[in-house]
Amino acid sequence: MLKSKVTISDVAKAAGVSSSAVSYALNDKPGVSAATRDKVLKVADKMGWRPNMAAKSLSNASVQSIGMVLTYDTQVLSVEAYTMELIAGLTSELEKEGYSLTIRYASNQQAEMDVLRDWIATGGVDGVLLMNIELGDPRVELFSEHPEMPVLLLCDSSVAGGLTALSDDEQSTAHLLVDYCHELGHQRIARIAGPEELSHTFIRDNAFMEETAELDLQYSCFHTDYSPESGRKCTERLLSLSKPPTAIIYDNDVMAVSAVRTAKKLGISVPDQLSIIAWDDSFLCQVNMPSITALSRDVVARGRACARMLLGMIDGQDVKSTTDVPSELVFRDSSGPLVG
Amino acid sequence: MLKSKVTISDVAKAAGVSSSAVSYALNDKPGVSAATRDKVLKVADKMGWRPNMAAKSLSNASVQSIGMVLTYDTQVLSVEAYTMELIAGLTSELEKEGYSLTIRYASNQQAEMDVLRDWIATGGVDGVLLMNIELGDPRVELFSEHPEMPVLLLCDSSVAGGLTALSDDEQSTAHLLVDYCHELGHQRIARIAGPEELSHTFIRDNAFMEETAELDLQYSCFHTDYSPESGRKCTERLLSLSKPPTAIIYDNDVMAVSAVRTAKKLGISVPDQLSIIAWDDSFLCQVNMPSITALSRDVVARGRACARMLLGMIDGQDVKSTTDVPSELVFRDSSGPLVG
Repeated sequence: MLKSKVTISDVAKAAGVSSSAVSYALNDKPGVSAATRDKVLKVADKMGWRPNMAAKSLSNASVQSIGMVLTYDTQVLSVEAYTMELIAGLTSELEKEGYSLTIRYASNQQAEMDVLRDWIATGGVDGVLLMNIELGDPRVELFSEHPEMPVLLLCDSSVAGGLTALSDDEQSTAHLLVDYCHELGHQRIARIAGPEELSHTFIRDNAFMEETAELDLQYSCFHTDYSPESGRKCTERLLSLSKPPTAIIYDNDVMAVSAVRTAKKLGISVPDQLSIIAWDDSFLCQVNMPSITALSRDVVARGRACARMLLGMIDGQDVKSTTDVPSELVFRDSSGPLVG
Repeated sequence: MLKSKVTISDVAKAAGVSSSAVSYALNDKPGVSAATRDKVLKVADKMGWRPNMAAKSLSNASVQSIGMVLTYDTQVLSVEAYTMELIAGLTSELEKEGYSLTIRYASNQQAEMDVLRDWIATGGVDGVLLMNIELGDPRVELFSEHPEMPVLLLCDSSVAGGLTALSDDEQSTAHLLVDYCHELGHQRIARIAGPEELSHTFIRDNAFMEETAELDLQYSCFHTDYSPESGRKCTERLLSLSKPPTAIIYDNDVMAVSAVRTAKKLGISVPDQLSIIAWDDSFLCQVNMPSITALSRDVVARGRACARMLLGMIDGQDVKSTTDVPSELVFRDSSGPLVG
């Protein structure tokens, strides 16, 4: 048998209570009744649960690590460079202070919550980075109840529940994209977005509706799982309308690449009849024929910024939420004015 | 100031000795003189160095984590999916046993050695995965001297110095590729490889020389840093020969994509005049026009296998070196018989 450690979830199962309840009881926080607390402590003791890591064994201790839970689909992962670039930036900056990055995989939200509760309860990491925040995300509530654990959210500060966030300026970006299409003479623009439940999709949706209304442009939007296949299907659907859009913005690069092929199959010329723009630049956008106009941001630099903010929080500094430098639009061959 | 821990390198600097010497002294291993050992112990004690983590604070303890050092160039990283796919496989399998993946960045070999020595000395991780093994790699010697730390090498067992390795069957793969080109009627084949110092490049080089000699084919090979730019330059050089190769194999996907563009610029038709084959399949190979014939392997599954082997070693099992399932050749539009 593997050397094993009793986790918060193990105790929760044995005691017949939620993992939160166990976490509150073991950490002596409010949120559970005295009876539950008592039961949890007894079960935990019987199972040999103990807080692990240096956090409890050394005074003022640190395990010298930042935690991050991955919950991605491996299919999407294999075509997107974002996560790896973020990890590259994070680890290279953490290394300067001798810190590691601790990565855990979780197949669903419940499993992720268990990992996070475990980290909070045991001090298994010194700080946590949270990505892909959803509307009403339970992780925001969890960390609000545990101010002792430094946490940084990659999301708009409006959905961070008062926790520290590093956000994109989605409003400026929407303005930039809509303005660009408008200046090229496009009157009907569309957007193929990511999952609707992600807070950054929600923020972008609002920003686009506002910007297009401002300029009196027609705007339609579909939500997808970011896969090339969804990119293809949504593009076909839009292009089969009697008055199809003449410019489409894709929330990632692989859907934009799919769209170029879809347009070609349908006999629609890019960019003469249809402009295609990708959100997130990549090698794919550069080497595609035609090359794809894309929003470029320095994800490695963003990873470094995350590391610095988290190290500051661990150091006890008052780190404020901030907005990342705006993305830049890289002009390539897939976009232009309407012809004919 | 950040909460900090004194590392092996800190002690080494203060004592004016190498990190190895400190590691040997603190772990009571042979390899340093009694005088050095004494000096190191005094300096370490004065600096407040102590073995960290649960390894020393709990009996039969485990920190429930596997360690991996990243040393990549962020440019190459942003175009290659391999590392992220490996991490995906590793973390999803480790999660089943409640293990984390601990990632450290190192900007050079010396920095990587310091991280590894630190892990060995402090029990900061329960096992280590080593990638990109070079010929005469000092990491092989380090872990040979520390059998107490489970380690898995991603390399041919012939260069693993007796340590446990998960390898590719480069011989069968070379056979597969050379046979395929030969059957299409190609007499002059070339290969644009990765860095010459990597052991897997060395093994492939030998395998290709043997297979082409066997079939009496002309064979040339250039070594690169895997970048698209090197792919372009080497392709131009080969195609400017008076008798250029008619089939070229590229050791990664991005160089193959570059090559298709280079051939187009030079007015050479793919695949009628030149067959292009990529080592490592990807979305890039699928969506390129023409789509690129590629060797496909399941890197996520390989990551899972690494996790299982390491967990077995941590569990005290006698885990044998093994060879991964062979890669498969996915036939696409960039390769075919010579025309005209």
